[in-house]
Amino acid sequence: MEKIVCFGEIMMRLNPEGYLRLVQADRLMVSFAGGEANVAVSLANYGKDVSFVTKIPDHELGQACVNELRRFGVDTSKIIRGGKRLGIYFVEKGASQRGSKVIYDRENSAIALADPSEFDWKKIFDGVCWFHFTGITPALSDKMAAACEEACKTAKEMGIRISCDLNYRKKLWTREKAGQVMSGLMKYVDVCIANEEDAADVFGIKSEDTDVVSGKLSKEGYIQVAETLSKRFGCKEVAITLRTSISANDNQWAGMLYRNGQTWFSKEYLIHIVDRVGGGDAFGGGLIYSELEGMEPQDVIEFAVAASCLKQSIEFDMNQVSVAEVNALMKGNATGRVQR
Amino acid sequence: MEKIVCFGEIMMRLNPEGYLRLVQADRLMVSFAGGEANVAVSLANYGKDVSFVTKIPDHELGQACVNELRRFGVDTSKIIRGGKRLGIYFVEKGASQRGSKVIYDRENSAIALADPSEFDWKKIFDGVCWFHFTGITPALSDKMAAACEEACKTAKEMGIRISCDLNYRKKLWTREKAGQVMSGLMKYVDVCIANEEDAADVFGIKSEDTDVVSGKLSKEGYIQVAETLSKRFGCKEVAITLRTSISANDNQWAGMLYRNGQTWFSKEYLIHIVDRVGGGDAFGGGLIYSELEGMEPQDVIEFAVAASCLKQSIEFDMNQVSVAEVNALMKGNATGRVQR
Amino acid sequence: MEKIVCFGEIMMRLNPEGYLRLVQADRLMVSFAGGEANVAVSLANYGKDVSFVTKIPDHELGQACVNELRRFGVDTSKIIRGGKRLGIYFVEKGASQRGSKVIYDRENSAIALADPSEFDWKKIFDGVCWFHFTGITPALSDKMAAACEEACKTAKEMGIRISCDLNYRKKLWTREKAGQVMSGLMKYVDVCIANEEDAADVFGIKSEDTDVVSGKLSKEGYIQVAETLSKRFGCKEVAITLRTSISANDNQWAGMLYRNGQTWFSKEYLIHIVDRVGGGDAFGGGLIYSELEGMEPQDVIEFAVAASCLKQSIEFDMNQVSVAEVNALMKGNATGRVQR
Amino acid sequence: MEKIVCFGEIMMRLNPEGYLRLVQADRLMVSFAGGEANVAVSLANYGKDVSFVTKIPDHELGQACVNELRRFGVDTSKIIRGGKRLGIYFVEKGASQRGSKVIYDRENSAIALADPSEFDWKKIFDGVCWFHFTGITPALSDKMAAACEEACKTAKEMGIRISCDLNYRKKLWTREKAGQVMSGLMKYVDVCIANEEDAADVFGIKSEDTDVVSGKLSKEGYIQVAETLSKRFGCKEVAITLRTSISANDNQWAGMLYRNGQTWFSKEYLIHIVDRVGGGDAFGGGLIYSELEGMEPQDVIEFAVAASCLKQSIEFDMNQVSVAEVNALMKGNATGRVQR
Amino acid sequence: MEKIVCFGEIMMRLNPEGYLRLVQADRLMVSFAGGEANVAVSLANYGKDVSFVTKIPDHELGQACVNELRRFGVDTSKIIRGGKRLGIYFVEKGASQRGSKVIYDRENSAIALADPSEFDWKKIFDGVCWFHFTGITPALSDKMAAACEEACKTAKEMGIRISCDLNYRKKLWTREKAGQVMSGLMKYVDVCIANEEDAADVFGIKSEDTDVVSGKLSKEGYIQVAETLSKRFGCKEVAITLRTSISANDNQWAGMLYRNGQTWFSKEYLIHIVDRVGGGDAFGGGLIYSELEGMEPQDVIEFAVAASCLKQSIEFDMNQVSVAEVNALMKGNATGRVQR
Amino acid sequence: MEKIVCFGEIMMRLNPEGYLRLVQADRLMVSFAGGEANVAVSLANYGKDVSFVTKIPDHELGQACVNELRRFGVDTSKIIRGGKRLGIYFVEKGASQRGSKVIYDRENSAIALADPSEFDWKKIFDGVCWFHFTGITPALSDKMAAACEEACKTAKEMGIRISCDLNYRKKLWTREKAGQVMSGLMKYVDVCIANEEDAADVFGIKSEDTDVVSGKLSKEGYIQVAETLSKRFGCKEVAITLRTSISANDNQWAGMLYRNGQTWFSKEYLIHIVDRVGGGDAFGGGLIYSELEGMEPQDVIEFAVAASCLKQSIEFDMNQVSVAEVNALMKGNATGRVQR
Repeated sequence: MEKIVCFGEIMMRLNPEGYLRLVQADRLMVSFAGGEANVAVSLANYGKDVSFVTKIPDHELGQACVNELRRFGVDTSKIIRGGKRLGIYFVEKGASQRGSKVIYDRENSAIALADPSEFDWKKIFDGVCWFHFTGITPALSDKMAAACEEACKTAKEMGIRISCDLNYRKKLWTREKAGQVMSGLMKYVDVCIANEEDAADVFGIKSEDTDVVSGKLSKEGYIQVAETLSKRFGCKEVAITLRTSISANDNQWAGMLYRNGQTWFSKEYLIHIVDRVGGGDAFGGGLIYSELEGMEPQDVIEFAVAASCLKQSIEFDMNQVSVAEVNALMKGNATGRVQR
Repeated sequence: MEKIVCFGEIMMRLNPEGYLRLVQADRLMVSFAGGEANVAVSLANYGKDVSFVTKIPDHELGQACVNELRRFGVDTSKIIRGGKRLGIYFVEKGASQRGSKVIYDRENSAIALADPSEFDWKKIFDGVCWFHFTGITPALSDKMAAACEEACKTAKEMGIRISCDLNYRKKLWTREKAGQVMSGLMKYVDVCIANEEDAADVFGIKSEDTDVVSGKLSKEGYIQVAETLSKRFGCKEVAITLRTSISANDNQWAGMLYRNGQTWFSKEYLIHIVDRVGGGDAFGGGLIYSELEGMEPQDVIEFAVAASCLKQSIEFDMNQVSVAEVNALMKGNATGRVQR
Repeated sequence: MEKIVCFGEIMMRLNPEGYLRLVQADRLMVSFAGGEANVAVSLANYGKDVSFVTKIPDHELGQACVNELRRFGVDTSKIIRGGKRLGIYFVEKGASQRGSKVIYDRENSAIALADPSEFDWKKIFDGVCWFHFTGITPALSDKMAAACEEACKTAKEMGIRISCDLNYRKKLWTREKAGQVMSGLMKYVDVCIANEEDAADVFGIKSEDTDVVSGKLSKEGYIQVAETLSKRFGCKEVAITLRTSISANDNQWAGMLYRNGQTWFSKEYLIHIVDRVGGGDAFGGGLIYSELEGMEPQDVIEFAVAASCLKQSIEFDMNQVSVAEVNALMKGNATGRVQR
Repeated sequence: MEKIVCFGEIMMRLNPEGYLRLVQADRLMVSFAGGEANVAVSLANYGKDVSFVTKIPDHELGQACVNELRRFGVDTSKIIRGGKRLGIYFVEKGASQRGSKVIYDRENSAIALADPSEFDWKKIFDGVCWFHFTGITPALSDKMAAACEEACKTAKEMGIRISCDLNYRKKLWTREKAGQVMSGLMKYVDVCIANEEDAADVFGIKSEDTDVVSGKLSKEGYIQVAETLSKRFGCKEVAITLRTSISANDNQWAGMLYRNGQTWFSKEYLIHIVDRVGGGDAFGGGLIYSELEGMEPQDVIEFAVAASCLKQSIEFDMNQVSVAEVNALMKGNATGRVQR
Repeated sequence: MEKIVCFGEIMMRLNPEGYLRLVQADRLMVSFAGGEANVAVSLANYGKDVSFVTKIPDHELGQACVNELRRFGVDTSKIIRGGKRLGIYFVEKGASQRGSKVIYDRENSAIALADPSEFDWKKIFDGVCWFHFTGITPALSDKMAAACEEACKTAKEMGIRISCDLNYRKKLWTREKAGQVMSGLMKYVDVCIANEEDAADVFGIKSEDTDVVSGKLSKEGYIQVAETLSKRFGCKEVAITLRTSISANDNQWAGMLYRNGQTWFSKEYLIHIVDRVGGGDAFGGGLIYSELEGMEPQDVIEFAVAASCLKQSIEFDMNQVSVAEVNALMKGNATGRVQR
Repeated sequence: MEKIVCFGEIMMRLNPEGYLRLVQADRLMVSFAGGEANVAVSLANYGKDVSFVTKIPDHELGQACVNELRRFGVDTSKIIRGGKRLGIYFVEKGASQRGSKVIYDRENSAIALADPSEFDWKKIFDGVCWFHFTGITPALSDKMAAACEEACKTAKEMGIRISCDLNYRKKLWTREKAGQVMSGLMKYVDVCIANEEDAADVFGIKSEDTDVVSGKLSKEGYIQVAETLSKRFGCKEVAITLRTSISANDNQWAGMLYRNGQTWFSKEYLIHIVDRVGGGDAFGGGLIYSELEGMEPQDVIEFAVAASCLKQSIEFDMNQVSVAEVNALMKGNATGRVQR
C-alpha cells in the first residue's frame, strides 16, 4: 500500500459543551484539528497509510496533539517537534438562527514560523503516491507558502498526485494575496477541491445565478466554475461541495465532481447537524480514498458526499466513520435505524 | 390491587454523553434496562403493583441494579441473587443519517445461566393477575426458554393473563430457532405485542406492500399480520407499533390494536427523538396498564402509543411519565407548551 | 446616557443537563433569572446603563446572584441585602410532545416579604429615563403590589417612561386578583408588553379566531386586543409576542407593535428551540432598547423579535447577544452560517 | 424481623462539585438527606426493615425524594404526600483551614407545616420494635414538637424502644427553647445519642476539661456528661461521638457508650474526610443495628464508630456500607488496601 | 472610600479537572487570572473600590474576561479594549511528589503589545490612593516596562502609595534583565512584596542558611533580605511569604513583615492544598487591605497570611473569601469545623 | 533500537468519578488497562519501541482499545482482532479506612478464549530484545498458559531476555494452580518482579517478620525471599515492590533489587495516593527501561521506584510520565513545587 502525505497546521480546538456560548462556558472540550490533519484522520480511519507533516512545540500540549493523531493511526514520525506555540481555535456551536462562531488564536504558531528548509520533501515523499494540502497552509506565512511550493515541485518531480482544497480563510489573508499565491500553486495541482464559495473568494470565479447567503445554488453555475478552474490551472479534476444552509441546525448537502469536461452530481442530503466543522475535510478525505480505490466517478462523488454527510452527525472536526458505514449510507440507508 | 409479574434480563446500559460515538467517549452514562424491566418500571410509574423476576449477581453492580428497580417502586423481593455477571450493553446515539448502535455484552449473564428450577412460579404468581415476558428471555438460553414455558404453563393454570412482546434480537438467535421456540410459547399468550418487523423475523408473517427500510408501511398489510398471528396461535389480541424512520432524529410513530377481528389505529406522531431505545417497551407498559384499567379499545391503543411517544423524548430506556402526562397527550395537547 | 431601572424578583434557577427530567437528575445547572432581571441583562448587553432593584438575602447564594448580575454589567448598587431566602425555580426542558415544566419554590422570598418602605424611589429614579416591571412583581405579595404602585406614581411624577410586561403567572395569583391589581397599575404604563395569552388571562381581552393550544393565531384578533388594551388603560403602545408551538422543539415566533392606532407585524421565524424560557423577556429588552435608540416602528418590532428569536437558541433565561448580532438577523441573515 | 420507624424531615441537598465554593458553582450535585432519613438508610443497607415517616409535596421533587429512599429499600408507604415545599439545604465542602458551610432553606417545608393529626401513630407503629427521631424534628415547628411527643407517648404505650439523637441546630431554635422541649421528650427516650457538643448546647451539661474548638476532649468529662444525662432523664443508655477536628480534611473520631453506670470507649480513627456530613447519623444507624443484633457493649460502640468512620469516606449524607464492610473495619483492617 | 488601581495582564487559565495531567484531559476548566487581577479581586471581595487596568481584545474571550472581573465587583471601565489576543496559560495540578505545572502561551498578547501612550495615568489615578503592580508587568515587554515606569512616576507625583510584588518569572525574562528593570522601578515602591525566592532571583539578595528546594528556610536570613531590599531601594516596607513545600499536597505557609527595621512573623499554617496558584497574590491583597484599614503590624501580617492560607483551599487563582472569614482564621479557628 | 514485546490482556476499565462508590455512580470514566499493557505504555512514554500482543474483538470497543494503545505510541500491529468480548473491570477508589475495590468481568474475553496457535512467536519476536509478561496471562485460561510457555520457549531460543511480574490474582486461579503453572514458566524468566505478597501467594515463599496487613515489612525477610526465588528458579534478578498501606490515601512505597546475591534498596516515599492501581506495572516499566539503558543497580531500583511513585499521583492505570520527570524525582526533588 502506498502512502499519502498531508501537510498543514494542527491546532488545539476548544469549544463549550452543547449550545453554550463562549461567554457562558466554564469548561471547554479539548480536541485537535486542522484542515489537512482532518483529511489524514479520515484516510487512516479508512485503513490507508497516511502521514501528517507539520511542526509542533515540544511541550505537553504538543504531545497531546501528537497522541491524538497516533490514536487514529496517523503516522506522526515526520512531524518536527519545536517552536513555541500550538495554534488554538475556539468554536461556539450555533443553533437555529444563531450561526456557529470560530475565533482563531493561531498567529505565531510553530508551523507558521517554521522555515521551509526544515522539511526535507525528498525524504518525506519516499514511497508516497498522493500529496494533499489546503489553501490554509500557504496562508499561514510566506515561509509556509514557500514550503508548499517546494513540496508541490518535489511531488510533481516524483510523480506524486497532488490535491488541494482551496479552503479560503479571510482572517488569514486577503482575497488578493490568496489569489496570487494560490495561482502559483494551482499549476501543480491534479485535484482541486472547493466549497461553494472558495473559487469566488480566491480567484473571483463566480457561479452565475447563485447567492450563497440566501441559499440559492445553481448546478449550471458550478459546472462553469469547475470548467474555468480546470482550464485556467490545468487541473484534471475539480470537486465542489454544495451546502445550502437552512438554519444552523439544518443544512442541505451535496457535491459535484468534474473530470475532463464531464460532471457528476451526488444525491442531496438533508442534514440535522451535530457539528458541521470539518465537513469539507471529510469530503476531501472521502474523495482521495475513493479515487485511490479506483471507484467510478459517480461512486467517487457519492462516497465523498456520504462520508462528509456522516461527519456532520459527529462531534468535533475529525470524521469517525468506517468505509462500511459510508458505503451503507451511499447505498441508500439514510433513515438512521438502530443497528443492534 | 392485583399484581403484575415481568420476567427477563436486566442489564447495565452504558452510553456516551450526547451524540459522541463510543470510540470518542471517555465517560459513559450508567443506567439499567431490559425489555421486561422497562415494562415493569412503566407500570410502577403508573401506580401498579409490579414485581420483576430475574437473577442478578450478589455484587455491587447487581446491587446498583436492584436499587434502580426499587427506586421506581418495582418489587424486587422475587429477584434471585447469584451467578457471576450482569449483562452489559453499550448504546451509541445516532443523529441524522447515522443510526444508533447497540453492542451487546450479555452472554453468560447470571440469568442466561440460571436453571429453570430456581424459579418457583407457583409462589411467584401468588396474587398475580398478569404475566409479561418478551422474546428476549427465551432467546437468552435453552434454560431460559424452558423457564418461560414453565412460567407460561403455570400462569395459564392459575388463570393469569399472559402478554408477550416478540422482540426479535438477531444477535441472540436465528430466525429459525426463534420461530420454533416462540411458536411453542405463543400458544399460552393472550396479548401479542410486536413491532413492524418482528412478525416477519420470527414467524415469516410479512405485511404486504411494506418496506421497513424505505419507510413505507401499509395499514392493510398490518391488519393481515395481526389476523394471521391471532389465527395461527390463538391469541385474542395483537398490538403492533408502527415506526417510520425518517432520520435518526425524526420518526413517525403510531400503533394498531387488533382484537377479535376488529382493528383500531392510533393517531400518528412526528417525534423528535431524544432516546428511542425502550420505545417498544413503553408501548407494552402502556398497553398492559390501559387494558387493566378497562379502557375502550381505541383508548387502549391511544394510551399505549402516547406513552411510548413520550418515552422517546426521555433519556435512557425507562419511561419516566405519569398517567396524567400520557392522558394529556392522548387527549390532544401535543404542542409541548411550557407547564408552569 | 440616561439610566433604566428594572424592578422585580431574581431567583436561583436549577435545571437538569440536556433533556433529563427532574426525577432523573443527579446534578442541576445553576443560573439566576427573573422576568425583570432578564430584561436588565439584555439592556446591559446592548450597552445600556441599567440598574436592577430587588431585595436579596445577605448569604452566599444571594452574593452569587449579585455576582451574576454584575457579570453582565448590571448596576447592583441599589439592591437591598437582607431577608431570609432567595426564591428558587426548577426547570425541566421539554422535547417533542413533552412540554417543559417549571416548578416554583419562591414563596416567602426576601423580595416577597419586603416592605414597600424599603425602596426609596425618588433616590432610585435619580437620573433615570425608563422604568420597567412585569406583572410578576405585584403578584408576589400585596406589599410588592403596593411597592409597584408607589414606583409607578413616583416615576410618572418624575416624567419617567414606564413599561410593563403583563406576564401572567397562574401559580402566583388568580385571574381575578391579577385583573384587579393590574388594572390599577396599567394607568401609569406607557408601553404594555404581552404574550399571546396574557391579555385574555389578566383582563379577559381575547383575540377572536385564536386558539393558543391548537396553535391558531389570528392577526386581526391581536390588533383588536391591542386596541382594547390601549383604549381601556390609555397606554400609548402595546407590543405582543406571537408564539405558535408546533412541538417542544419547534416554535414559530413573531411579534406585533401597536402605536396610536397603527400596527406593525414582524417577520415570522421558525425556531429550533435550545431554551425558550426568557424569550418574552428578551423581547421586552429588545423593545426598550430599540425605542430608546429611536428606531422606526417597523425596526422596533423587528429588533425585539429578532433579539428574542436569538435568545431561544441560547441556554438559560438571560439573552447573551449583542446589538450587532440582533441587527445581522433582523437584516436577513437567518441561515446560521459559520462566522469564522 | 420487626420493623424500625424513623420520623423527621428529608430535604434536597445541593452541593458544588469537589471543593468549589457556592459562589463559584455553576452546577450542584443533588442528593436527599435528613438526620432521621440517613439513619433509616443505614439500617436498610444493613438489611433491616425500616420505614421512614415524613410529609413531602406531591410534585416531581417530592417524587425524586421518595425514589431515593426506595432505592435504598426504605419503606416509603407511610409517607404523607402533600404540602407545598421540600426543604433544601446547600453544602459547601471545606478544606484545610476553611470549614464546611451549610445554608438551610427549610422553613415552611411540608413537614414543618404538617399537623400532628396527620400521623396515625397507632397504625404507623404496628409491628414496630424501635422508634428513632432526633432533636431536629421538634425544632421544625411547635406542631412537630407536639407530633414527636405524641409519637413517643404512643411508642412507650406499645412497648417500643425509643432512641433520640439530640442533634442541636442553632439556626432552628435557641438553646433555651431546645432545652425546654427536649427535656419533655427525653423522659420517653431509652437511648440518647449525642455529639461532643449537644449536651452542653441543649441541656447545659458540659464536659469538664474539654474545649471543642481547640480540639481538647476529656474522656472523664464525657463519662460525667453521660451520667448526668442518664440520671436527669432516666435514659438507660447514652452514646456520644467524640470528634477532634484537626483540619477540615483530617479529624479524629471515636465514641463512647454508657449503660447503667458502665462505660465503653471505642478505638479512635484518624479520618481523611471525603464528606463528614451524616457522620453522626451513621453512628446512630450503626448503634441501633448493633443493639438490635444483640452485640456486646464493646462491639456495639465499635460497630457504631466503625460505621460512621466509613461514612466519612463517602460522598453525600447517606452511609453506603454493608455490615460486612463495617465488621472488617472494626476487626482491624484499617489500612484501606485494595480488594480485588 | 478611595480607590485602588491594579495594573497588569489578565489571562485565560485552562486546567484539567481534578488531578488529570494535561495530556489526559479532554475538557479544561476555564477561569481568568493574573497576578495583579487576583489582587484586585481580593480587594473587591473585601469591599474595596478597586479598578483593574489592562488591555484586552474586543472579542468574546475578552468579553468573558471582563465579565469575570465585573462579577467580583472590580471596576473594568478603565480597561482598554483592542489588540488581537488574550494571553492563555495552562495549569496542571500536582499531587504528592509530582509538582504542579504551568505552561504559558502569553506572548504577543494585547497588553504585551500595547503602547505606553494608551494609558492616561493622570486620569486613571484620579481619586486613587494605592497603586499595585508586580514584576510580571514590566517583564511582558519593553513597552510595558516603560508603562510601569510612567505609572509609578505619575503615582509618586500624585502622592499615591505604590506596592510591587517582585513575582519573578524566569520564562518571561532573564535574572539580569529583571534585576536591571526592577531596580529602576523599585525606587518608586513603598511596599515591596516577595516570596522566598524572588529577592535572590531578581536582585541576587539571598537568605543565608536557606535552601528552598530542600525546604529549609531561615528566619534570620529573611530579616536580612528585607533589610537589604529596604536599604538598597528605600522602600519602607517589605513583606515576604515563606512557603515550605513538603509535597505537592502539603505545604507550610507563613509570612514576615519588615517595617523601618522592625520585623513581625505570622503564625505558620500546615496547608492541605486545593490549588496553590494565586497564594502569593492573595497575600498581597490581604496586605494592602489590612494596611488600608490601619491594622497593627502584627495584624497586618496575620491577615495577609491567613487570607493567603485560605486561598490555597480554593480552586482557581482568585481568592473567594470575605473579611469575616479571614478574621475568623487569624483569630484562631483553624480546625475547619462545619459552619451550619 | 531493539524492540520490546509485552503479552497479555487489555481490558476496559470503568470507574466512578472521584470517591463515589459504584452503587452511587451514574457515570463511569472509561480507560483501558492491563498489567502488561500498562508496562508497554510506560516503555513507550520513555521512548522505547514496544509492541503489545493480545487478542481484541473487532467492534467499536475493541477499536477504542487499540486507539488508546496507539495514542501512547505502542505498536498495535501484532494485535489479533477477533473473538467476542473485551474484558471489563470496575474500580472503586477507596479513601481513608475504606479500601479500593476491583470487580472483574473478564471471563470469556477474546484473549482468554484465544488459541495458542494464533500467535506466531517467531514472527512476533523478530528484532526483539526483551519479552515481558505477568502471572495474569497464564491465569486467564489453560490455553493462555500454553501460549505463555510457547512464547517463553521461543524467546529463550532466540536469546531474548524475559521478565515476569508474578502478579497473583486470587479471583483468576487458586494458589495451588498458580504455583504449579508459574513454576513451569519461571525457569525461562531472567528478571522476576513481585510485590510484597506475590512470592508467598504463588510459591509459599514468605518473608519472615512481615505482616502485610498490619504494615510491618522486614528488609531482611525480603532479601531471603529474593534469594529463595533466585535459587529455586534460576532467575538472575528479582525486583520487589514494598508497599506499606497506612490508609487508602497514604502509603509508603519502596523497592528492592536482588542480583547475583547482592541487594539494593531504594529510598522510601510517603505517597498521597491519587490512583494506586497500576503502581506495580509502572515499577516493571521503570525497571525494564533502566535495565535496557544500562543503569547501575542502585539507579535501576531508584528509577523503577520513582517511576511507580509518580504513577500513584496519576489517574487511571497507565503511567503518564517522562524519563525527565522520573529522573528529577529520583535525584531528589520530591517536594512537588510548581514548575512554571
